[in-house]
Amino acid sequence: MSRYQAMSKDELSQELTALRQAYHEKKALGLSLDMSRGKPSAEQLDLSMGMLDVLKSTDSLVTKSGIDARNYGQLEGLPEARQLFAELMGIEPDEVFICGNSSLNMMYDTVSRGMVFGFPGGTKPWGKQQKLKFLCPAPGYDRHFAICEVFGIQMITIPMTPEGPDMNLVESWVNNDDTVKGIWCVPQYSNPEGITYSDETVRRFANLKPAAGDFRIFWDNAYCVHHLTDQPAHLLNLMDECKKVGSEDMVIMFSSTSKISFSGAGVAAIGCSRTNMAALERVIAMQVISFDKMNQLRHVRFFKNLDGIKAHMEKHRALLKPRFDMVTTTLWNELGDLEIANWTNPKGGYFISLDTMDGCATRVVSLCREAGVKLTDAGATFPYGKDPRDRNIRIAPSYPTLDELQKATDILCLCVKLATVEKLLEE
Amino acid sequence: MSRYQAMSKDELSQELTALRQAYHEKKALGLSLDMSRGKPSAEQLDLSMGMLDVLKSTDSLVTKSGIDARNYGQLEGLPEARQLFAELMGIEPDEVFICGNSSLNMMYDTVSRGMVFGFPGGTKPWGKQQKLKFLCPAPGYDRHFAICEVFGIQMITIPMTPEGPDMNLVESWVNNDDTVKGIWCVPQYSNPEGITYSDETVRRFANLKPAAGDFRIFWDNAYCVHHLTDQPAHLLNLMDECKKVGSEDMVIMFSSTSKISFSGAGVAAIGCSRTNMAALERVIAMQVISFDKMNQLRHVRFFKNLDGIKAHMEKHRALLKPRFDMVTTTLWNELGDLEIANWTNPKGGYFISLDTMDGCATRVVSLCREAGVKLTDAGATFPYGKDPRDRNIRIAPSYPTLDELQKATDILCLCVKLATVEKLLEE
Repeated sequence: MSRYQAMSKDELSQELTALRQAYHEKKALGLSLDMSRGKPSAEQLDLSMGMLDVLKSTDSLVTKSGIDARNYGQLEGLPEARQLFAELMGIEPDEVFICGNSSLNMMYDTVSRGMVFGFPGGTKPWGKQQKLKFLCPAPGYDRHFAICEVFGIQMITIPMTPEGPDMNLVESWVNNDDTVKGIWCVPQYSNPEGITYSDETVRRFANLKPAAGDFRIFWDNAYCVHHLTDQPAHLLNLMDECKKVGSEDMVIMFSSTSKISFSGAGVAAIGCSRTNMAALERVIAMQVISFDKMNQLRHVRFFKNLDGIKAHMEKHRALLKPRFDMVTTTLWNELGDLEIANWTNPKGGYFISLDTMDGCATRVVSLCREAGVKLTDAGATFPYGKDPRDRNIRIAPSYPTLDELQKATDILCLCVKLATVEKLLEE
Repeated sequence: MSRYQAMSKDELSQELTALRQAYHEKKALGLSLDMSRGKPSAEQLDLSMGMLDVLKSTDSLVTKSGIDARNYGQLEGLPEARQLFAELMGIEPDEVFICGNSSLNMMYDTVSRGMVFGFPGGTKPWGKQQKLKFLCPAPGYDRHFAICEVFGIQMITIPMTPEGPDMNLVESWVNNDDTVKGIWCVPQYSNPEGITYSDETVRRFANLKPAAGDFRIFWDNAYCVHHLTDQPAHLLNLMDECKKVGSEDMVIMFSSTSKISFSGAGVAAIGCSRTNMAALERVIAMQVISFDKMNQLRHVRFFKNLDGIKAHMEKHRALLKPRFDMVTTTLWNELGDLEIANWTNPKGGYFISLDTMDGCATRVVSLCREAGVKLTDAGATFPYGKDPRDRNIRIAPSYPTLDELQKATDILCLCVKLATVEKLLEE
């Protein structure tokens, strides 16, 4: 039982008065702070500025493979860039398709292509089929869910466990319902909980026996090198596991450098089997002549290889770790004794996931906003923006300065207390 | 009557023997030349290399408007880039949406969005409507037609006239058939004929009274500053004309720097009314967090304004004009007297359009390919890849060197003669 739950109504009322007084003082500061999106700080972006000097007017833009990066052509990307992403994604270079600057755009396009063209193994395009469902492990990434929503795909919430999505449920849906066409996965340092799928979970994914031949696992490995500790989480490679059982056509992997180099100007890639690749090349050829190969070349020349990326990510970690520590330490100091909330201590990724008492998240986010602290909307981490228990809040500590972050987290803790006491007094 | 048509069968047979001999000699050279795509030469790409030095690691990437170009955000593009494209497109900055590197991709996406979401003025998404038609002025751009084909949109061929598409036909279709949802236009220096729409044509476009509220003019002004003479063709601004009669929601304009800066790494933009813009912002927000603003900033800092672009295009012209002249001069020297073909002398753009005698184009392209000269497939300039008269060939002179171009055009002329004589002997 929490300290607040142990209080009498009178004690709670006194606490409420004190908290309201503190809240009004904070509000009077007129702050404007943002912990809503996983946006790198300016200091993080500074780490990649050297990339601007690897392609100068005096440099040759013809690659080692003999391609002029400035001109049309090479739809699937520079061989050198495919090699770099192959290392990053743990697959073969000819399983990599390098695209524009946004992996989200690639996921949107992949669903869109499913609707219009369908996928190998299917009988007709998704758009021509009566019912479509996607499995949505939740809490999860709001923008994944938004894609389903705009395409009219029904979302099925799958609870997350410390090992990844509840695989009993996943297997039951995928293996029995041929209207289930996809599942959204952030397998390493998941958004927002920072969970890395266990070996067992990955193996069970590889061994799915989908009722629908055009079912695809959307494997959004956005945080594959985004460690916050010196003991990186280990994620089994899904493609390797699939190849063992011949199920590799079931997987589409997504990766990008948005949180490695520049968020607005990185490079994104799709990883998939050669069968899927052939289908992809055919349809992307209708859409675009080629993607930006100069930016691909910039990334190749700057990072060189996976070791280069890993060394670079150590610098990100040095900037991010203190921010995560400040938030979790403050949460602990302010809320630890009260036992009115739980939160994650992620080993990587971009978020801290905070669970309030049931029914308090919307109120907390709204109180924070009024006091000048912007958080991701409550409910955003669930399909249709509706958290059934109204308790999950996603905290994004990367963008603010440490000073701003301290102020914002103080206000957040205060708002959690305030909303909890309000809630208890209602009951 | 052509010189060949005036010949007796015997004379033709003698000519055939001589041409075949010449052809075999050319073939023995084992050339590998490409006049198939509108691809800039390396010299043209060299013109923009200075763009690589305007963003260095020591430069600030915060724009005048206070935006960090490296980070997420500013979905519709940097204000400075919107201003630059507004000048280029002759519209207002808030009518400009800056996208990725490819205007073709934007056109594909626009059709795709029409299918999934529909457009303001329509009753439901295109994809939910029974029949869909696009008008396709032809000869035209093969990649426009390919987009219709993949989305299952029926294409109606509209003949081109020296003033643009046959507007009697366009009006008749658009104003009476509510399944007509769009028309593809390259209004200045059209692909492949180099025709610039007359003022009368543009005004008639602005005054269309579409039967379908979700009809859109796809105004692909790819060659708006791509002049080959010092007397640039004048194109009336469609948006201005539309505003006079309140029809501006009917237009979606496309532009890019693919043939201004780098073909593989330029910046593309959509121009449209504020009503269309609001709808566009809503749906693009589901697709991508933001496009590459660093490349936008590179373009802004390098070109500065429309005058900067115009001065830059003079340098392109200096490289392109001799190539166009070489092709047209060779065509004239080799085929002028024979009167077996017609071709254009474009004042701008990227192509020369060659019409052989009916029924000869496929054979010419195939003979050229065997002799090591790659041309755009015969028929490509018509919907479904079928030229009803099998006569149109698109010549793209930009990419080869002058020396290669001379060799390629010599072979082309020889193949036109050979195919014509073969044809006449068949009859």
